Amino acid sequence: MKRVLVVLPVQERHKEKLEKAGEGCIFTYSPVKEVTEDMIAEAEIIIGNAPAAKIGASDRLELLQLNSAGADQYIKPGILSDKTILTNATGAYSKAVAEHMFAMMFMLQKKLHLYRDAQAKAQWTDEGTVCSITDATVLVVGLGDIGLHFARMAKALGAYTIGVKRRISECPEGVDELYTTDQLDEVLPRADVIVSFLPGTKATYHIYTKERFALMKKNALFLNGGRGNAVDADVLYEVLGGHQIAAAGIDVTEPEPLPSEHPLWSLANVMITPHISGQYHLPETFERVVDISAENLSAYLNDRPLRNIVDFTTGYKK
Amino acid sequence: MKRVLVVLPVQERHKEKLEKAGEGCIFTYSPVKEVTEDMIAEAEIIIGNAPAAKIGASDRLELLQLNSAGADQYIKPGILSDKTILTNATGAYSKAVAEHMFAMMFMLQKKLHLYRDAQAKAQWTDEGTVCSITDATVLVVGLGDIGLHFARMAKALGAYTIGVKRRISECPEGVDELYTTDQLDEVLPRADVIVSFLPGTKATYHIYTKERFALMKKNALFLNGGRGNAVDADVLYEVLGGHQIAAAGIDVTEPEPLPSEHPLWSLANVMITPHISGQYHLPETFERVVDISAENLSAYLNDRPLRNIVDFTTGYKK
Repeated sequence: MKRVLVVLPVQERHKEKLEKAGEGCIFTYSPVKEVTEDMIAEAEIIIGNAPAAKIGASDRLELLQLNSAGADQYIKPGILSDKTILTNATGAYSKAVAEHMFAMMFMLQKKLHLYRDAQAKAQWTDEGTVCSITDATVLVVGLGDIGLHFARMAKALGAYTIGVKRRISECPEGVDELYTTDQLDEVLPRADVIVSFLPGTKATYHIYTKERFALMKKNALFLNGGRGNAVDADVLYEVLGGHQIAAAGIDVTEPEPLPSEHPLWSLANVMITPHISGQYHLPETFERVVDISAENLSAYLNDRPLRNIVDFTTGYKK
Repeated sequence: MKRVLVVLPVQERHKEKLEKAGEGCIFTYSPVKEVTEDMIAEAEIIIGNAPAAKIGASDRLELLQLNSAGADQYIKPGILSDKTILTNATGAYSKAVAEHMFAMMFMLQKKLHLYRDAQAKAQWTDEGTVCSITDATVLVVGLGDIGLHFARMAKALGAYTIGVKRRISECPEGVDELYTTDQLDEVLPRADVIVSFLPGTKATYHIYTKERFALMKKNALFLNGGRGNAVDADVLYEVLGGHQIAAAGIDVTEPEPLPSEHPLWSLANVMITPHISGQYHLPETFERVVDISAENLSAYLNDRPLRNIVDFTTGYKK
């Protein structure tokens, strides 16, 4: 009889769904902030992002189903035992994150960030030329569920879309051209909008270097909805402060929270949101997290293949 | 030999296009600010929004092709002679205005206006629940070229769209349900987003009354991309200040510019832009204005039917 520890903010109907999927298991529920090391040590299965520091490479832990798409905290050495299967919630967040970044893109294209600043001073000021999604070549770097959702929205409104992913595959619907990450430098100069959804891995750390920003168009918009450490905040400050590209919209920073004294806060041509594009701000997201968790719980207990298994060496799903 | 006065900011290639369409005519070009009453009095045809006050119901003027979609200034008594045909530039602005208002909608749905305010204070603050375009019923009031463009964008991203127009017609592609203006009160309670593109006419003056705002959902977003006088600014202030609806995004106000001391400026849940959605901020717009002008000039000279003739009693195209 497996013990399942659930650290999600579940309601009664979510419990019913999980317990049906894990029939015969013993369920414990706890708010994530109240999770103890003992609770973790007793569990064969954990559903939700239990604090990484408290897991202590528990030998008993067979399956950790995260409620996040990112798994950075859990693939570090010493956190999980070799025996533990790690699965993430990729897919649950795609709509929420893609739409948030899409809103940021539109905001920057139409200069609504500058109009908001003018409004704060009660100023009726014309900010000049804008651009259109229909004329834009949109480069999506990181073409997982989120990136693909973004590309399809852009395509639906008339943009030309280029996708970049790690491994070559057939070009998916909604993407006009597909490249691999090692071809990034070839496509950066063509993009009007660069939107990055890269996870936090060794390979993506500070991937947007000064040199790469220099390859972008002078009127390019750069968006980051992946992990903050894909860009060094000081490099981003330099690039935007020097108007090497037009503007940036970032939901992730390095570090997080961005310290209040960081000069990036006060640049007019950057829009910062505090890593809120995902979470459960779109009510549908949490329902999808519970669905993935229930599916994987049932699959694990019944020896069926699991969804979203994380590869410890890459941080991506296998 | 007709005299054509062009008061558009034309470049050489635009002149060529117009002169080809108006072969045999005598062309005069003038910046709109330098147009004199004499220039107007000599012209049989004017292309561009010559100052209404200087027209003085000129008997010689046969055709006035506006560069704007709105014709409010020119349908007032005493401005144009009965002999003058008035045509507008409906169609040229549809993409620019629709996209601007679409950006506003997305901004409000994702609370980016509040995140921008927090950014000004270098605050890493979570603003809570957001909503998705895919769950939204979008009500487009005023289903001309602009409204239809907006509806189709919303539909392309998964919204359910309801259109309201003056006269019943077949439901156009991109619109799920179609109603007439006298049914407005029936559909207001169903909408998550109400976007208004009504022109400034007697029938649309202060059409969004307190009572109509009271019919809207408490979490509704109201957008105005038509004419400011569709809403009394004091009513809007009361409705938003009292959180009777969630938020508003307006590109038009009454009066314009909105006086700096007006309390609407300082409400967090209203986004104001200074009537800039149209104009020539999207470079493509001006090309389309010149195309419509050349087409109508040629049609008029060759006794073919004109596009976009304005009905003086309604202010709409006939």
